[in-house]
Amino acid sequence: MILDELSVPIVLAPMAGGPSTPELTAAVTAAGGFGILAAGYLTAADTAARLAATRELTTAPFGVNLFAPGPATPPETFADYLAELGAHHDLGTPKHDTDEWDAKLDLLVAAPVSVVTCTFGCPKATEVARLHEAGSEVWVTVTSAAEARIAVEAGADALIAQGAEAGGHRGTFVDRVADDSTDPLGLLALLQILTTSFDRPIVAAGGIVTGAGIAAALAAGAAAAQLGTAFLRCPEAGTNPVHRAAIGSGAPTMLTRAFTGRRARGLRNRFMDSHSANAPSAYPEIHYATAPLRAAARAAGNPDEVNLWAGQTHTLAPALPAGELVQTLASDTKTALQRALSRRIEDC
Amino acid sequence: MILDELSVPIVLAPMAGGPSTPELTAAVTAAGGFGILAAGYLTAADTAARLAATRELTTAPFGVNLFAPGPATPPETFADYLAELGAHHDLGTPKHDTDEWDAKLDLLVAAPVSVVTCTFGCPKATEVARLHEAGSEVWVTVTSAAEARIAVEAGADALIAQGAEAGGHRGTFVDRVADDSTDPLGLLALLQILTTSFDRPIVAAGGIVTGAGIAAALAAGAAAAQLGTAFLRCPEAGTNPVHRAAIGSGAPTMLTRAFTGRRARGLRNRFMDSHSANAPSAYPEIHYATAPLRAAARAAGNPDEVNLWAGQTHTLAPALPAGELVQTLASDTKTALQRALSRRIEDC
Repeated sequence: MILDELSVPIVLAPMAGGPSTPELTAAVTAAGGFGILAAGYLTAADTAARLAATRELTTAPFGVNLFAPGPATPPETFADYLAELGAHHDLGTPKHDTDEWDAKLDLLVAAPVSVVTCTFGCPKATEVARLHEAGSEVWVTVTSAAEARIAVEAGADALIAQGAEAGGHRGTFVDRVADDSTDPLGLLALLQILTTSFDRPIVAAGGIVTGAGIAAALAAGAAAAQLGTAFLRCPEAGTNPVHRAAIGSGAPTMLTRAFTGRRARGLRNRFMDSHSANAPSAYPEIHYATAPLRAAARAAGNPDEVNLWAGQTHTLAPALPAGELVQTLASDTKTALQRALSRRIEDC
Repeated sequence: MILDELSVPIVLAPMAGGPSTPELTAAVTAAGGFGILAAGYLTAADTAARLAATRELTTAPFGVNLFAPGPATPPETFADYLAELGAHHDLGTPKHDTDEWDAKLDLLVAAPVSVVTCTFGCPKATEVARLHEAGSEVWVTVTSAAEARIAVEAGADALIAQGAEAGGHRGTFVDRVADDSTDPLGLLALLQILTTSFDRPIVAAGGIVTGAGIAAALAAGAAAAQLGTAFLRCPEAGTNPVHRAAIGSGAPTMLTRAFTGRRARGLRNRFMDSHSANAPSAYPEIHYATAPLRAAARAAGNPDEVNLWAGQTHTLAPALPAGELVQTLASDTKTALQRALSRRIEDC
């Protein structure tokens, strides 16, 4: 397993929509971590180009993340929300698609990477088998024991445990408004539940941004920690300027469906406050509908209408080159574990 | 500091309203942990009796937890909610009180314990000073950096960091519906934020129920972990039968104000589903209003109208004697840290 071979137990989270770049992926990998390139929102052709660009930068193993497709949402579910947004904004056409899932799988079978990770659902067992035959490991993002069971039964090699603290989209297999009251599990709760029930390596994700945080994930039984927000301010990241400036600002985060129709955590801003209450579960339809207004706000430098995805600890994200950050985190991780083990614990 | 002297870094959470007993407090203390007796909801006289009973059982240091009083809520804030409940239930009289805060402080100054912990707010600096003069440490429950700052400025000796995962009431100094979208922070996020900013020992609380979870808290920089739900099924706990039977049932937890007018995490049941949406922030008024219906449901063995407080990992809570549980957890904590440190981490 790739996780056994890493010299540093740090995985770069795939941050689709801008931050993920071949340069960031390669830099994390070069420093001993494991880079995962985001393929979400990209066409299969653009994914191929990014894979090629990453291979130009590193010969080491790296991974790719795909968004698993979900069902289309009936237009009546989001008609009122579009009317609410349309009163103030120019909207794009809401549409459903599979994010070119089949074409991307074909691409990854033809030109395999070391690891394919998946978010928003679990590949079918036959799809996992195809990736295995191509020589790839399959890691599935899960947020609950029920999702972990599905992933393990489909043949997943590892589970990416995503806690409540995580920035960006919740990886839930199904995004139901009715589940909001009982979801999400905090990372440390989820890790205890998964390590107790499943015999698969676990990658801990959600709000980890310090060596002490990585040490905690390892102590809880994770094989590695996956960090996203921690890398948003790195020079190698493709984070847009509005987003980059907002990270570390001190603003609190919240979960919202307002921007994309799927629950995601970002810095609280005016758009969230105005529209979260009525935003339906309708992904990717709402993603497409709000794309023009978000693009316009990014271009105008207006943080109040941009999706500023960030985890709960974003104030601690440093502005360092990615390789330096990985090495600092690795050193701090070791120190934190040694300090913890030096504490007196008298057992029988 | 007491935290430096514990032979096992486990603190028993003060579970007011039944589960906390002198027997449970003494058993945790005898096993090398630190027991905290709950004084919330008790009169000062009953608190004195419980302190005396605990002193009969142990000569070792233990602590007491107080609920900090908040302001009264205007009746018009909760009139509609009472009308909603009153249509189906016999209600108690909603009233405001201070939970005998001043009398309890006087008691603890006259007959000091090793540690006074506080929930729902921070004692005034003068009150902290009185407790210090009496020889007690003061630990304050916090859920954010802003609350930690207030506690440190008031003279708190340690911070109890309560993460989102915790069962029972959120310890927020102020319970505002408007803050629900950005609160709560997950435990691992909160620990990273607090250890980075404050030079005080931290006790980690929220969803910790395994040795691996305690190890994670220590690795994150906490001096100890505070566990509540983990002890609910112990024979020494005063957990009522309806509550005891529900712990470990597999039901998900959620946060609600329906039972007490303050956000608290418990097992989802019909009362929560029916009333959470309209429940206002009005504590302890709603606590008193719902007391009779909760008592009746407990007596009838009806879990659908009882506040079944539980953390997110309650399914993992074992039914063991408290001392045995503390020793098992201590041993597992050590094992988890050693295993984590045995992982290869190559830093520069």
